[in-house]
Amino acid sequence: MPYVELENSQANGHGQIDYGENVMKGLRKEEGFKKSTTQQLSEIHDHVLKTFRLLIADLCQQFNGGHPGGAIGMAAIGVALWKYVMRYAPHTPDYFNRDRFVLSNAMTLDQLKSYHSDRVDALCPGHPEIEHEGIEVTTGPLGQGVANAVGLAMATKNLQAIYNKPDFDIVSNHTWCMVGDACLQEGVALEAISFAGHLKLNNLTIIYDNNQITCDGSVDLTNTEDVNTKMRACGWDVIDIEDGCFDIDGIVKALKKARKATEKPTFINVKTIIGLGSAVAGDAVAHGAAFGAADIANMKKMYKFDPEQHFVVSRGMREFFEDIPARGQEWVAAWEKKFPLYEEKYPELGAEFRQRVEGRLPDNWRDLVPAQFPDKPTASRASSGLVFNPIAKDIKNFMVGTADLSPSVNMIWKEKVDFQHPDLKTTCGITGNYSGRYVHYGVREHAMCAISNGLAAFAPNTFIPVTSSFFMFYLYAAPAVRMGALQHLQIIHAATHDSIGMGEDGPTHQPIELAALYRAMPNLLYIRPGDSEETAGAWITAIDAKKTSTIISTSRQVLPQLSQTKREGVARGAYVLEEVKDADVTLIGVGAELSFALDVAKDLRQTKSVKARVISFPCQRLFEAQSLEYKRDTLRKHRIPVVVIEPYAPNGWERYANAAICLTRFGHSLPGKAAYKFFGFEVGKMASKVGEYLEKIKTDSILREEFVEL
Amino acid sequence: MPYVELENSQANGHGQIDYGENVMKGLRKEEGFKKSTTQQLSEIHDHVLKTFRLLIADLCQQFNGGHPGGAIGMAAIGVALWKYVMRYAPHTPDYFNRDRFVLSNAMTLDQLKSYHSDRVDALCPGHPEIEHEGIEVTTGPLGQGVANAVGLAMATKNLQAIYNKPDFDIVSNHTWCMVGDACLQEGVALEAISFAGHLKLNNLTIIYDNNQITCDGSVDLTNTEDVNTKMRACGWDVIDIEDGCFDIDGIVKALKKARKATEKPTFINVKTIIGLGSAVAGDAVAHGAAFGAADIANMKKMYKFDPEQHFVVSRGMREFFEDIPARGQEWVAAWEKKFPLYEEKYPELGAEFRQRVEGRLPDNWRDLVPAQFPDKPTASRASSGLVFNPIAKDIKNFMVGTADLSPSVNMIWKEKVDFQHPDLKTTCGITGNYSGRYVHYGVREHAMCAISNGLAAFAPNTFIPVTSSFFMFYLYAAPAVRMGALQHLQIIHAATHDSIGMGEDGPTHQPIELAALYRAMPNLLYIRPGDSEETAGAWITAIDAKKTSTIISTSRQVLPQLSQTKREGVARGAYVLEEVKDADVTLIGVGAELSFALDVAKDLRQTKSVKARVISFPCQRLFEAQSLEYKRDTLRKHRIPVVVIEPYAPNGWERYANAAICLTRFGHSLPGKAAYKFFGFEVGKMASKVGEYLEKIKTDSILREEFVEL
Repeated sequence: MPYVELENSQANGHGQIDYGENVMKGLRKEEGFKKSTTQQLSEIHDHVLKTFRLLIADLCQQFNGGHPGGAIGMAAIGVALWKYVMRYAPHTPDYFNRDRFVLSNAMTLDQLKSYHSDRVDALCPGHPEIEHEGIEVTTGPLGQGVANAVGLAMATKNLQAIYNKPDFDIVSNHTWCMVGDACLQEGVALEAISFAGHLKLNNLTIIYDNNQITCDGSVDLTNTEDVNTKMRACGWDVIDIEDGCFDIDGIVKALKKARKATEKPTFINVKTIIGLGSAVAGDAVAHGAAFGAADIANMKKMYKFDPEQHFVVSRGMREFFEDIPARGQEWVAAWEKKFPLYEEKYPELGAEFRQRVEGRLPDNWRDLVPAQFPDKPTASRASSGLVFNPIAKDIKNFMVGTADLSPSVNMIWKEKVDFQHPDLKTTCGITGNYSGRYVHYGVREHAMCAISNGLAAFAPNTFIPVTSSFFMFYLYAAPAVRMGALQHLQIIHAATHDSIGMGEDGPTHQPIELAALYRAMPNLLYIRPGDSEETAGAWITAIDAKKTSTIISTSRQVLPQLSQTKREGVARGAYVLEEVKDADVTLIGVGAELSFALDVAKDLRQTKSVKARVISFPCQRLFEAQSLEYKRDTLRKHRIPVVVIEPYAPNGWERYANAAICLTRFGHSLPGKAAYKFFGFEVGKMASKVGEYLEKIKTDSILREEFVEL
Repeated sequence: MPYVELENSQANGHGQIDYGENVMKGLRKEEGFKKSTTQQLSEIHDHVLKTFRLLIADLCQQFNGGHPGGAIGMAAIGVALWKYVMRYAPHTPDYFNRDRFVLSNAMTLDQLKSYHSDRVDALCPGHPEIEHEGIEVTTGPLGQGVANAVGLAMATKNLQAIYNKPDFDIVSNHTWCMVGDACLQEGVALEAISFAGHLKLNNLTIIYDNNQITCDGSVDLTNTEDVNTKMRACGWDVIDIEDGCFDIDGIVKALKKARKATEKPTFINVKTIIGLGSAVAGDAVAHGAAFGAADIANMKKMYKFDPEQHFVVSRGMREFFEDIPARGQEWVAAWEKKFPLYEEKYPELGAEFRQRVEGRLPDNWRDLVPAQFPDKPTASRASSGLVFNPIAKDIKNFMVGTADLSPSVNMIWKEKVDFQHPDLKTTCGITGNYSGRYVHYGVREHAMCAISNGLAAFAPNTFIPVTSSFFMFYLYAAPAVRMGALQHLQIIHAATHDSIGMGEDGPTHQPIELAALYRAMPNLLYIRPGDSEETAGAWITAIDAKKTSTIISTSRQVLPQLSQTKREGVARGAYVLEEVKDADVTLIGVGAELSFALDVAKDLRQTKSVKARVISFPCQRLFEAQSLEYKRDTLRKHRIPVVVIEPYAPNGWERYANAAICLTRFGHSLPGKAAYKFFGFEVGKMASKVGEYLEKIKTDSILREEFVEL
């Protein structure tokens, strides 16, 4: 970040004077800053911090907005981290073994963003991703970043355990996560913190920018817990930094200690002052507004800078950071030299590793999908296992987890190994190690999905995280599912127990309205396969979707296996399951209730001489992507009425159907079959409803044009 | 619960023999159990626990399902609580001053539910609410119950601070919350725990059924934290019970100590063994499956019960619990005697209290809503304040909170007092006391809404909780919003910064797909008012909705005040804003973009001679409830094309419109106006799109029947 600002300040052509000359005298790069005395270094640091604080103040003032307070408070942390500790290469930002940095507190990220808003496009146009160089994930809503960081650290551990050899540590990076007071209040962060402590992720460091300020005022307005003790109780080491605004040396020492931690993740509690040096220092108002010209001029006077000058960066300051790119390139070069040697010595692992670095799967992965399935009725959650377990077993890109529903979600493959700290002893006897790829996330749905975003963000498609839980609990995880989709991360969510067919657990577990959310969510495929064949199609589609997240939504209860289903059909979103000449109506069947549509068609034919064609419609978004011609040929809505059968809120189906047999109230606690019956999803009853509807619209032309719930 | 089972065992006509006779000898009720020696009591308890455990085992076995393990493990806690400590009245279940009990761990609630599933309807038919007597809230998904309990305890504190007098403690109840291992992993519970510690809710006790088992196996598979230390760090007192399966005395002592706690909430860590006495004791499989007949027979032999007999309850056992109803009625009678005296001495407070007990608002509350508003452009989040602040100020039913967005959501009324522990000193100087009705929830959106469910569940409409945050963050809170709607609780969510108009914070904060969730969610009103007048309508509608939750979704940015808007129109969901004779098209305007529709209509008229009528459509669910006639007269979709303008995913609008100017991708980080422009929401551009669409469908009859994104 500091580096970016140096570049920009020049590019912007603002005045540049050398206040630092005196401080830097005799300390030119060629003489080596390393030779500086403690006193000299201290003076350099003082100058550097002042420069940054004024740059931040000037920047926010320029467009009268932004979040200056936090950034100013964190300046010393930034210098310590980016100058002295972080291993990264500005000129090779995607260097595979780089340290990962996650900015979980929103402030500075916001600032970077608004920095590049339309008002300042001239300052740094184009390439909105490059500008976030060094920021690994979009954390956005508070708390997500902590969990993302846990995922990044898990990714490192897993790669190390699988690929590192005593003579080759090809993966050795550390994950740093900066959090604010707000992050540490969010449930998703608290879940992830507890889990990281359990996993003993010693390659993870949280740096807590402890300024005790949130939007509403001081933190003690809402939170008076003893955070250090809480973190220790969760299995973290804690280091305190009392003077976080100035004590760069202390911060560097703490960061270095954290990198060398052997047993636990580290929590560095850095006391800072928001908006330090400004008139609003330590106050909530420093959080989200520019300081004003007068206040900034005062700061500059106090710092012995020229109050008339803006965006001032001294030559000495520039040189102080000049070693960073070269140092980074050295790391890159060393790694690039080492890796071919590794490939030579460990050709199989090397090939696999390279393939993963390149985000590819083995070419033959499709061969692992069963060509056909047993005829007997099968729950589609079981079909998911049949399809995916062999893939998960063989292909190490997949990191598969569950939020405490292993017995229900069928994601365990034969001889799976758990991802656990190798020393863990459990009461139930199940153990694992870091090379394991099955993750017991605990009852932490939200953290599971946010951690999976971190896994996926480690490097494109190097990991393809799979999460699993009941579909309803993906409402708990929704903010993280959204962040995955928004960041174009390939994550597959195996959601079981969908629709009211899940039964006894009742309305709190029956997802009536949840599909409406995920069908509307951009860059997310919500797929409801109707039997094993379609479940194969769903997984193939999800694995092919390199930049999109997918929810595969399956049934708890057994489903009949249908001869008409086609895995290729799933990829098109909808396809004709049963064609009839001169049909009177199109029935849409979906997922667990797909067979209902076939049965209703049969009943209509037999009892009412109504000819119904049936289409299977597992995924609206995939269907939307098809050609207009395909869509019209499949639906035929412009010719005959279309009726959709799905025990969900119908929102969105109005586009494809004229009428719906659906559910617009909360469910009911009954066994699955009884629940279907209770809500009128019986074949005879449904057929009668369709028959009556078709009769009615013969004479009621207005009704024919309206969407009707039957 | 035990009591219910006693009743049922008789009603069911199962065999009843008196194994307890020997144990109970000389200990009949008339002699008073209180006179029993420690040794005698211990023998009684032993008998009672065995009886319960076998009842539970028999019950689950009867229909080969349920969750016997947890219930059996918790039997001693149940006896301690319901026989010795809880103040409740089985015959007057809604006794206002009763202790509140929340069962947060799902196990036993599930069991009660399945107990009454269709398979056992004969055992206890009808009245599905009465059977849950003594259970205050539907906790459903894990973790919710902890937050609900915090809300219940806050309700007590607030009523006490407002209404209790030194000589009249008309509210004195305690809240007990039973949690399992799983609950304590969920983020929403962790948020609520931290907040309850901050508030020093000494009237709240969590009883932790610490059996160290979840679905996947032992808890140490996923969680190895030091929970006691963590709870202490969060501001809780901790009491350990080592032998939670048998030590009724110890549990009673702990519960009584917790009730008398003066400074902090209490966490009682009770070590139990899941499925105690069965072959699967201590194992995860004890959690969710019946034990099997052979295992139960063995248990009975071990307990010296007849293995051939089922549902056995001794007369002594029955008598042991027989004092409970009478004791309860004494409490009720005492309170009912005391309250009129209170009313006499404190007539104003008494009248207000009675009104709240009856769930009513002062009759004149509508007079508090401004009759009109200033003409100047106003953000609808500001309108929300104009409408609701005076109501919140005067009417004590409202408990208003925010998840750290006080400066943004405008929910603070003049002279508001914060709900805080009276001794709290904060760095920022803001303090409060328990009579305060403004709650700084911290950055804990999910807990805020789940706690609000608890507040609302205290007694019907005695509290009407109001929550506030950015609309996007209601995705964090969605599971709790859902539980509120599902339980028919009146809760009002003031969601600001809706649509892309919120601007700079970018796609992570711009709610593209979230409205689709809430428009589909049963028993929830998602209302987007278009200006101050409609905002008044939204609040009036929400306050009138006694058994329904509402989200009032408002803008960050200023909106023009429209002369055509009508507050009464909001209650109908949609209404005609601008009528035109022989219109060519109906434009739907919504919320922050309502004026766009009017502007587009004007532009169409001026530049294209197209006659557009405009309807305002703030709430789909309210509109659905209108008569068919009203709906057709308003929409006229059967006569002319309808185009909706809203920068959201259009899912659901297909029912009302033929085309949409909408947004099906994630947003973009730009100032609000620039974001509208970036996505084509400029008046001229939108008018052109509508004009072109109207031209196209003149010749393309298929397109006319399809839903089109413009």
